[in-house]
Amino acid sequence: MTTIAVVGVGLIGGSLGLAARERLGARVVGWGPRRPTLDLALERGAIDEAFDSLHDALAGADVAFVGAPVAMLPEVVEATLAAAGEDCVVTDVGSTKRALVASVADRRFVGGHPLAGAETAGVASARADLFEGATWYLTPTEATEGLLYERLHRLLVGLGAQPVAIDPETHDRLMAAVSHLPHVLANVLVGQAAVALGDQDRLPATGPSFRDATRVAGANSAIWTDIYVSNRDALMESIDDAIARLRAVRASLDAAHGDAVTTWNDRAADDRRRLLEAQLAGGPVHELRVSVPNRPGVVAEIALELGRAGVNITDMALYPTSDMREGVIALWIAGDASAERAHGLAEGLGYPVSRPA
Amino acid sequence: MTTIAVVGVGLIGGSLGLAARERLGARVVGWGPRRPTLDLALERGAIDEAFDSLHDALAGADVAFVGAPVAMLPEVVEATLAAAGEDCVVTDVGSTKRALVASVADRRFVGGHPLAGAETAGVASARADLFEGATWYLTPTEATEGLLYERLHRLLVGLGAQPVAIDPETHDRLMAAVSHLPHVLANVLVGQAAVALGDQDRLPATGPSFRDATRVAGANSAIWTDIYVSNRDALMESIDDAIARLRAVRASLDAAHGDAVTTWNDRAADDRRRLLEAQLAGGPVHELRVSVPNRPGVVAEIALELGRAGVNITDMALYPTSDMREGVIALWIAGDASAERAHGLAEGLGYPVSRPA
Repeated sequence: MTTIAVVGVGLIGGSLGLAARERLGARVVGWGPRRPTLDLALERGAIDEAFDSLHDALAGADVAFVGAPVAMLPEVVEATLAAAGEDCVVTDVGSTKRALVASVADRRFVGGHPLAGAETAGVASARADLFEGATWYLTPTEATEGLLYERLHRLLVGLGAQPVAIDPETHDRLMAAVSHLPHVLANVLVGQAAVALGDQDRLPATGPSFRDATRVAGANSAIWTDIYVSNRDALMESIDDAIARLRAVRASLDAAHGDAVTTWNDRAADDRRRLLEAQLAGGPVHELRVSVPNRPGVVAEIALELGRAGVNITDMALYPTSDMREGVIALWIAGDASAERAHGLAEGLGYPVSRPA
Repeated sequence: MTTIAVVGVGLIGGSLGLAARERLGARVVGWGPRRPTLDLALERGAIDEAFDSLHDALAGADVAFVGAPVAMLPEVVEATLAAAGEDCVVTDVGSTKRALVASVADRRFVGGHPLAGAETAGVASARADLFEGATWYLTPTEATEGLLYERLHRLLVGLGAQPVAIDPETHDRLMAAVSHLPHVLANVLVGQAAVALGDQDRLPATGPSFRDATRVAGANSAIWTDIYVSNRDALMESIDDAIARLRAVRASLDAAHGDAVTTWNDRAADDRRRLLEAQLAGGPVHELRVSVPNRPGVVAEIALELGRAGVNITDMALYPTSDMREGVIALWIAGDASAERAHGLAEGLGYPVSRPA
């Protein structure tokens, strides 16, 4: 039976525990700085057992998930790796990746970030289906042990998530654009609305588009200040770009240039359509068998190459030879075009690919 | 039986027709520039009868709703008023109000704007529950006939909406902040995400906060270019303010000033909480009877005074004396505090108020 250690049982860790117990029959143990949180996690069925010592919690764990404010992650991940066995894969669920991944050099570590959340934090809000269909970014490096990466990948698929490999720099730039800037803009919007309405005794009703646009305004500062600050260079670039775009549309408005406004708006419609289509990739699942030498970094190399090309690995399995000198990575890829793509990319890296009949 | 004329049967007009027929048993007639649209409206049950002439459609109508792109509204409203009888109240459903209201001086006209919509436009997307609980702004003026305003108010309550009186300037400034700017920012976000991801072959998955923040990106240009341009002065002010706010948070990030980021984020959380609370007003419904002289503008004056104070009128009825020289406006107000407030405001305008036992 797989044993999963959850280090820090909040919304993500708790949901992970519920899903792993319910869907995979895994044993889930928990450790955290506050005993009442662990007791609540036990009561909710998110963990089988709570430990007062990190060392005891990690004994016998196959996989460890670390959840903590981004600024504390390097320290907690280091402590977790120190307590974990040689065959335990350790990952985290933090929203920025560069600083953490740069600070950890360990063959057992893979940075991670599930794109899942809720308006309310804490284990009390945990749910087993939180990761259903959610992208779960992983940042393997050359140092990452292939078999450990595979174990983590399969576990995440088992939780209902879609793991995608990405390098930490791309991840953080991407998050600045699709998560951190949206949070900043939501804050801007509620601030402005509150002032615009300040001459009224009570704030009047707003429409559904405003509620959608501001759902994440004022997200928990205990988590978000760290995220903003840890990704501040990428976020400042995103803010600069947003200001430039606002200036451009303002100029069209100032000139009452309807055609320019239409062109700008149509381009946004096109961008949105492309973004939505990207979420809808699918099709028949193909299996590819990639023959690889058994050396560090091969699995990360292939996963990152496919991640860069937007090819999702639906599932993955490693079959090492008995002497561990070489092996086969089986990849399951959804969609004819994506499978073709993956085939070509793996061959392009110099690894023979076969397709079982 | 009430007869409602829908001039331009799109998402709003079609939903209005469905709701009025289903909930109020009203007779709904339709006119529009494209016959296939009217046929679809008939097929969907949004209207009882379609007319090829605006004049024929308005014959016998008690209420007329005009839906058209904002730039065309003055013309279509004028034509509708010309075709409508002396006792027909004419309103519109456009997203900006200053230009239109300034262009129409007719005792039968009340500007309107329901805060309801959907991702897809057109009568094909119409639904009877579109206005359930939705704020429906009305912009009565001194010229507005009280009895006609009351009829419209009651009809909107019957459709499940919450009518709120507001002056056109406040409406447009408010919409710049809570609707038009959110649309602009959604466009900025998708544009930036598309570029940030441009070095990838396919756009990767984004999280739920991005989907929420960009739901309205690239909204139908046939409608939105007009809205942006017609409200461009208020929207440019909102954009300037957004840029100033972005610059401020950027400065905190540049200085890696975590405390300043926390303060800024906590304020947003507070603003959001206040905005949400404003939507949740309720409580026991009180009836107030306001004695008024029967002269033009009294109903608008009271409705606007209460709207300014954020007091919602749950329902309204006018009881003129037989000689039409004076009368009583019955107002139903939800919540003890709001009812007290309304009582004081009406007395403050010089009108005696009584509360039936």
